[in-house]
Amino acid sequence: SNLYFECSILYTFLLTISCSYHILCFCLQMGWGDLGVFGEPSKETPNLDLMAAQGMLFPNFYTANPLCSPSRAALLTGRLPVRNGFYTTNAHARNAYTPQEIVGGISQDEILLPELLKKKDYVSKIIGKWHLGHRTQYLPLKHGFDEWFGSPNCHFGPYNNSVRPNIPVYNNSEMTGRYYEEFEINVKTGESNLTQIYLKEGLDFISQQAMAQRPFFLYSAPDATHSPVYASERFLGKSQRGRYGDAVMELDDSIGQILAHLVSLGIHNNTLVFFTSDNGAAVMSGPHQSGSNGPFLCGKETTFEGGMREPAIAWWPGRIPAGTVSHQLASVMDLFSTSLSVAGVLPPNDRVIDGLDLSPVLFNNSLLDRPIFYYRGNQMMAVRIGQYKVHYWTWSNSWEEFNTGINFCPGQEVPGVTTHTQEEHTMQPLIFHLGQDPGERYPISVQSEEYRDVHRQVTAVVEQHQKDLIPGMPQLNMCDLAVMNWSPPGCEQLGKCLKPPESNPWKCVWPH
Amino acid sequence: SNLYFECSILYTFLLTISCSYHILCFCLQMGWGDLGVFGEPSKETPNLDLMAAQGMLFPNFYTANPLCSPSRAALLTGRLPVRNGFYTTNAHARNAYTPQEIVGGISQDEILLPELLKKKDYVSKIIGKWHLGHRTQYLPLKHGFDEWFGSPNCHFGPYNNSVRPNIPVYNNSEMTGRYYEEFEINVKTGESNLTQIYLKEGLDFISQQAMAQRPFFLYSAPDATHSPVYASERFLGKSQRGRYGDAVMELDDSIGQILAHLVSLGIHNNTLVFFTSDNGAAVMSGPHQSGSNGPFLCGKETTFEGGMREPAIAWWPGRIPAGTVSHQLASVMDLFSTSLSVAGVLPPNDRVIDGLDLSPVLFNNSLLDRPIFYYRGNQMMAVRIGQYKVHYWTWSNSWEEFNTGINFCPGQEVPGVTTHTQEEHTMQPLIFHLGQDPGERYPISVQSEEYRDVHRQVTAVVEQHQKDLIPGMPQLNMCDLAVMNWSPPGCEQLGKCLKPPESNPWKCVWPH
Repeated sequence: SNLYFECSILYTFLLTISCSYHILCFCLQMGWGDLGVFGEPSKETPNLDLMAAQGMLFPNFYTANPLCSPSRAALLTGRLPVRNGFYTTNAHARNAYTPQEIVGGISQDEILLPELLKKKDYVSKIIGKWHLGHRTQYLPLKHGFDEWFGSPNCHFGPYNNSVRPNIPVYNNSEMTGRYYEEFEINVKTGESNLTQIYLKEGLDFISQQAMAQRPFFLYSAPDATHSPVYASERFLGKSQRGRYGDAVMELDDSIGQILAHLVSLGIHNNTLVFFTSDNGAAVMSGPHQSGSNGPFLCGKETTFEGGMREPAIAWWPGRIPAGTVSHQLASVMDLFSTSLSVAGVLPPNDRVIDGLDLSPVLFNNSLLDRPIFYYRGNQMMAVRIGQYKVHYWTWSNSWEEFNTGINFCPGQEVPGVTTHTQEEHTMQPLIFHLGQDPGERYPISVQSEEYRDVHRQVTAVVEQHQKDLIPGMPQLNMCDLAVMNWSPPGCEQLGKCLKPPESNPWKCVWPH
Repeated sequence: SNLYFECSILYTFLLTISCSYHILCFCLQMGWGDLGVFGEPSKETPNLDLMAAQGMLFPNFYTANPLCSPSRAALLTGRLPVRNGFYTTNAHARNAYTPQEIVGGISQDEILLPELLKKKDYVSKIIGKWHLGHRTQYLPLKHGFDEWFGSPNCHFGPYNNSVRPNIPVYNNSEMTGRYYEEFEINVKTGESNLTQIYLKEGLDFISQQAMAQRPFFLYSAPDATHSPVYASERFLGKSQRGRYGDAVMELDDSIGQILAHLVSLGIHNNTLVFFTSDNGAAVMSGPHQSGSNGPFLCGKETTFEGGMREPAIAWWPGRIPAGTVSHQLASVMDLFSTSLSVAGVLPPNDRVIDGLDLSPVLFNNSLLDRPIFYYRGNQMMAVRIGQYKVHYWTWSNSWEEFNTGINFCPGQEVPGVTTHTQEEHTMQPLIFHLGQDPGERYPISVQSEEYRDVHRQVTAVVEQHQKDLIPGMPQLNMCDLAVMNWSPPGCEQLGKCLKPPESNPWKCVWPH
C-alpha cells in the first residue's frame, strides 16, 4: 500500500543574497553512507565529494524525524514535528506523513523560513516536492514562497484518476500537468527527465536573482531517489549501483552544475550552500530502490542511527574553511536558525525554536553543547548527548508487518534493540557510545559508572525538554478521499479537473 | 582460548630504491570502514585520508585470506595460501594461523619477495610481526630479509613462562627481550610505546638507505590494533572511538611521519608506498578491541566482504595521479607482482603466481579483468568476477561457538547466508551484485537471466582455477608445545632461555 512507501526525500537549496548568498540542499531519502566521502564503495558522487573538500563535512548531522514530511516541516519552521504539528496521536509512536488523503497540512500559526526572510527582501523559490499539505491553504505560495515548480506529494503512481488522481505538478499557484501524464516517469525503464527539469528551474532562478542582485532562498527538493526511483537517459545504467545509483549520480551532477553556476556568476563567495537529506535510506525497499546507511543500524522509519543520521555538507568559499570536518551534533532545524542569522533576521520570540545558529561552527569550527531528540510520532524514543545515545523506547516494526516480509532492518538484528514490539526502557534506558559503537550493538552495562553518569546527565536534559514541551495540534490524524488532488487550481484551463468523491473522513491508520 | 583471538594484523611498508622507492603498508586487522575516507564517522585518520588524496584509493581491494598469517604468506609469495602451504587439512574449511605451538612455517620451496629483490641489490627490512613460523629455519633472515625488528608471533600475553613463554622480540637474528618483560604492554591501561619503537626503526632504516642510495624494501607490520589493543601515552584516550581508535590514530600518525620523512629526504618521487590490511575487522571482539567493516557483512574469519575487503591506498607522487579512485579488483598478492615489476625483476616462472602486476592500474588507471577467490582453509568458498560475488559455501561459525557467545557477525543475520553450519551451494550458488548490494543481503533470483549469465561465466573461471590448482604441503596441521618460543637464538646472553617440555605433537584443532 502507499502507506508503506511513505514519501521522504527532500533536497534543499537555500540560496540567499544580501551580504551573502546561501544554498541549502536537502536530499530525499539519501542515506549517510551514499556519498563517496562517507564510504559508499562505488565512489560515484564526485561533485558532492568535491563540495566536501571545498567546505565543511558533518558526520554527526541529524534530520528531525525518520520520515519525509515531518522533517521538511521541521526544516522550514526550525521546530520539532511534535511542536509544529507534523505528527499523529492516532496511535502511540507512529510515523505519519502527508499522502493525498491527508486532511491536514502546515498550520497557519507556524512561521516558515521564507516568510521571515522577506524582512530582508529575499525572493524564495521551492523546486520539487513540497509535502506540507496539498489543499489550497497549505500550498507554498500561501506560506512565504514566491515561486514554486514541483508537486505537493510524492511521485507515486501511475493511478487511473478514478480511485486516486495522479499527483499534479504546479508552476507557482496553478497546476501545469500531472505525473505520468504531462510529466512522464517510465516505471518500467526508470526513465524520466524530471531531475533535469528541476535543475534548469534552479539554474534559471539563480541567474535571474543574481542579475537583479536580489537576495534569494532556493529550496530544492527533487525526489528522483525516492521509490519509484528514476533518472534521465544520460544516467540510466551508468552507475555500479543500479537504478538508485543512477539517480544519485544525476543528483550529484546537478549539485556540481549548481556550484559551477555560482562560480561562473561570480557569486560563490556570497553563497551558503547546504546539502543534506530528510531521512535515512529506505533499506526496507531493497537494493534497487534504496541507498546505504553505512555503518549505522536500520533505516528510514526508525529512530536508530540509520533512520536519522544524514549526510551533510556546508559550502561557502571564503567563509567556511575548505576541507574541514565538524563533529558538532547538528540538526536540519539548525538550517532555519543559521539562515536567519546569516541573513540578519531575528527568529520568532513567541515560541520554542529547536534550531541552533551554526554560524560559530561554520565560521570558527566551534563545538556547541546540545542534545538531539529522536521522535517517532508523539513519542520521544531516544536522546543523544555527546557521544552517548540513550534509548527510552525501541521499535523496528510490528511482527504483523515483519511476518509479511516488511523489514526495517534487513540483515540486521540486535537482540533487545531492534525489537518488533514497542519496548519501553524509561526506567532503565539502553545507552550506547556512538564513537565506539556507531552500529548500536553493544549497550553499556547498567552496572558501570559510565552508565550512571550518562543516565544522570541525560535525565536532567530530558526533564527540561518535557517540562517545556507544548505539543502542536496534530495535523496528520485525519484522512479523506475527498481532499485528494482531484481539482487543483488551474485544472480548468488544462481540462484536467476530476470529480472528487463525497467527503467521508476517517482517522488515518499508521501501521508503524 | 588463544585459538579464538587469532593474530591477524599486518602493516606493510614496501620500500624499494632504484629507479624508484616503494613503500607498502599492510595494517593488522584494520577494517575497510576504519578510515575517514572510507566512512568511519569519527574521521580520525587525517594522514591516511591525505595519503588517499595524494594517491590512488582502492575500494575493491582484497586480502588473500580472512586471517593474518596466511595473508602475510600470500603477500610475500604472491600465491594463495592453498598453494604456499599456509592452510590446514585437519578439517574442512578451517581458518588456521601460526600460534606458538605450530610446528610448520614458510616452506623452503617458497620464494619470497625480498629474495627476489636481492637481484637488484635491494636491502630489505621487516618491522613488527612476522608470523610465518617462529622456529629457527622459518625466521625472516633465513628468507631474504636483511634486517628485522619485531616478533615472530602476536603480542598475546602476559604468560608465566612455565606453561607458555612470552613472545620474544628479535633484533635481526637474535632475541632482544620478551613482550611484557623488556617490552611492556600494560594490558589494563593499554599503554605501550611499541608503535613508537617500530616507527623509529622505520624512519632510521629509510634514512640509512637513502643516505647510502641503496634500493630498499621496508615491510612494516606493527600490531597495535590487534587485541589486546595498545597505544602510547600521547594517544591513549584521545580518539572518539576508545582504545582501538587510539591505536588507529597512532598508526595514522606513523604513516604521516613516514610520508613526511620521505618528502624531507627528497625521495618521495621515487617511492611507492602502499597501505592495506591483512583481514577485516575482528568484529567478534566487540567495540573496544576491533574496528569497522563499513557497509560490509561480518568480519575476520569469514569469507563475506567484511572478512576480506580491505582499505588500500597507493602513493607515489609524480607517478600515481593524485586523488584517483581505482575500481580494479585487486589483491594483496598483487603487491608481490607489482613490486617485482617496478623493480625490474621477473617473477618466478616455475610456479603459479596469483598476483597481478598493477602497474597499468597505478600509472594509467587501466582496469584489468580478473577474479578474486575467497578461501577458508582448504575450501574455495566464493569467487568474485566483476560486480558479482558467487558463494559456493557459506559459514559464519558453528552453533557450538555461537551458543557460547562467539559471534562472527554481531548484529547481522542474513537468513541462508550467515549460516551456522557449513552450507554447500555448489549446485546452485548464492549470487550477489556487490555494486547494488555491498552488504550481501539480497541473493539474485536463480530464475533470472542475470543469474544464469553470471553462473555460466563464473563456472568457466572456477573450472580453470581448479584444474590448475596444485595445493601446497599444508603447514598448519601439527602443533607441539615443545616448539614454542622457549629458547630463541640469543636467549643465552640475555639469560632468558626457558626449558621446553618434551615433544608431544598433535593435530591442531581449528574450531572455525
